[in-house]
Amino acid sequence: MKRENTAPTMKDVAKEAGVALGTVSKVVNGLPVGDSYRIRVEDAIKKLNYHVNSYAQGLKASRTYTVALLIPNTYTPFFAALTYHINIALLKRKYRMLLCSTDYDSGLEQEYVTMVQQNKVDGIIGLTYNPNLIVEENTPFVSIDRSMGPTIPCVACDNFAGGQLAAEKLADLGCKNVAFMRIGSSLNNEPNKRKAGFENGCLSRGISYEMKILNDGDSFEEFENFLSDHIADGKLSFDGIFCVTDSLAFSVIRILQKLNQKVPEDVQVIGFDGTRRFGNMDYICSTIVQPLPEMAEMCVELLLRENAQTKPPLVCLPVAYAYGGTTTE
Amino acid sequence: MKRENTAPTMKDVAKEAGVALGTVSKVVNGLPVGDSYRIRVEDAIKKLNYHVNSYAQGLKASRTYTVALLIPNTYTPFFAALTYHINIALLKRKYRMLLCSTDYDSGLEQEYVTMVQQNKVDGIIGLTYNPNLIVEENTPFVSIDRSMGPTIPCVACDNFAGGQLAAEKLADLGCKNVAFMRIGSSLNNEPNKRKAGFENGCLSRGISYEMKILNDGDSFEEFENFLSDHIADGKLSFDGIFCVTDSLAFSVIRILQKLNQKVPEDVQVIGFDGTRRFGNMDYICSTIVQPLPEMAEMCVELLLRENAQTKPPLVCLPVAYAYGGTTTE
Repeated sequence: MKRENTAPTMKDVAKEAGVALGTVSKVVNGLPVGDSYRIRVEDAIKKLNYHVNSYAQGLKASRTYTVALLIPNTYTPFFAALTYHINIALLKRKYRMLLCSTDYDSGLEQEYVTMVQQNKVDGIIGLTYNPNLIVEENTPFVSIDRSMGPTIPCVACDNFAGGQLAAEKLADLGCKNVAFMRIGSSLNNEPNKRKAGFENGCLSRGISYEMKILNDGDSFEEFENFLSDHIADGKLSFDGIFCVTDSLAFSVIRILQKLNQKVPEDVQVIGFDGTRRFGNMDYICSTIVQPLPEMAEMCVELLLRENAQTKPPLVCLPVAYAYGGTTTE
Repeated sequence: MKRENTAPTMKDVAKEAGVALGTVSKVVNGLPVGDSYRIRVEDAIKKLNYHVNSYAQGLKASRTYTVALLIPNTYTPFFAALTYHINIALLKRKYRMLLCSTDYDSGLEQEYVTMVQQNKVDGIIGLTYNPNLIVEENTPFVSIDRSMGPTIPCVACDNFAGGQLAAEKLADLGCKNVAFMRIGSSLNNEPNKRKAGFENGCLSRGISYEMKILNDGDSFEEFENFLSDHIADGKLSFDGIFCVTDSLAFSVIRILQKLNQKVPEDVQVIGFDGTRRFGNMDYICSTIVQPLPEMAEMCVELLLRENAQTKPPLVCLPVAYAYGGTTTE
């Protein structure tokens, strides 16, 4: 992991372009300079092959080339795949990754934030549902799935569009009366937008819907009761169900089997995440796929980007529908 | 992550025991000293509560309290769960973990080994199938699943016993003619012992068996052909199958369904690993469970243990059978 120091410096670029060092710095940081200067600097950058990593080296003296990832665990398939893609995105840039499985331990999370402030790591990418985590402004931090304030970029898939897509897909597949099922953190986070997107999709397609929302700690049996209550003469009144995760979809499908409802013949089910069997085989169910490689790239790119002014507070990346056997197509 | 330096030193032990510092060092490192000296030193160690980590602090000046984990990826459930448990075992000891998803990249693996030699990390825990990885003697390294030489401890589950247990279980469940199915690296490694254990189990229980072994890159269709060839009048001649991984078992069960063979009624299937749906739900199939928390603890304990002479070259930890719906019980 030794750095090569033969890469061109900002000084080399200034010399090549025949401009002052400050001008190069402005161009690199996206600040306004005259067009002719900008073009000369950009040409010099191209000619010398002075790339983003060199920018970083030029601007900050002591880097650890280490980034910490805070993630609840790595055995949950979504977290496991996300960890993998972030690791790959960092390695590509010759950055090392400290992994911290937090198990939702807020003390541990805070410890890592302190490490950034002590310059033991260059920054943190974190998926945390800890509402009390204190991240000071200017601490290099990129959050996944939860907005932590205007100065901390948050990267997520387009959860609203994903919910909407699920409703539209069910409508396209002929469903007339659908259910929305959710369990999980009641904390304000991006995945919660799946609900609003789904409602929006149902309304725009003119199909009726019902919602069943459990909170963490609620008994899972409530889902079974909810579905039982909607069965008359052996027939479920819903012809489509959207579950906010593939894991929930899987559990709901089991309940449906127990209630003698055939999937997808009697009722079609769509999950969310794009979970693959054994990590790289087929989809576990029909699903809204999160773009994990793109989300990982975006997290790393935003974390390492020097110019804070160009960091957006929220980036939502496009999702896609994938067939996984629990819908008719 | 700051260390406390209030722990007793080796000097304190020498003073308490009334012996020379070298004598304490010998006792700590398991070298021969007279019994009366040994007892005095051991009593002093106990009295001062001078424990293993203090040994480490006494013997090695600059520690990074960072350990690297080399693992092919984190999306494969077995790797994902192993990564989690190693992370937890390290965090418990206030060690940080650098994660390196190697994607079987041997250059990357070698880079990390160099980092240990440059004291950038204290040691490496690695699951690598790279036969060319050069790890010098005295480099703190613990290998998982593959022996890398007498001075590098290897931690694995008891793969031989696991194979044997699978055969015995199938025999106990009434199977008379079973198959062994394997695909994977042909490199010499611990999981390969599952085959020998299975054969041994079949022989000791007096049940007949056949083997079908594919190598990496062989067409998966060969398994389907193998099973088809053993069907006469719609009936499979095997009443039990042991697959070397849960992932293979899952694929084999799909083939069996395609061939109209009911699992477990017509044929019982046992996999290996103990893979759980979504990482923490039920087992995907009946399986031989690897003791991941214990393996992770052992890896970390061996890596951080100072006394090299007490590090065994191979530790095999006990496996257990778990019912997962693809056997009759």
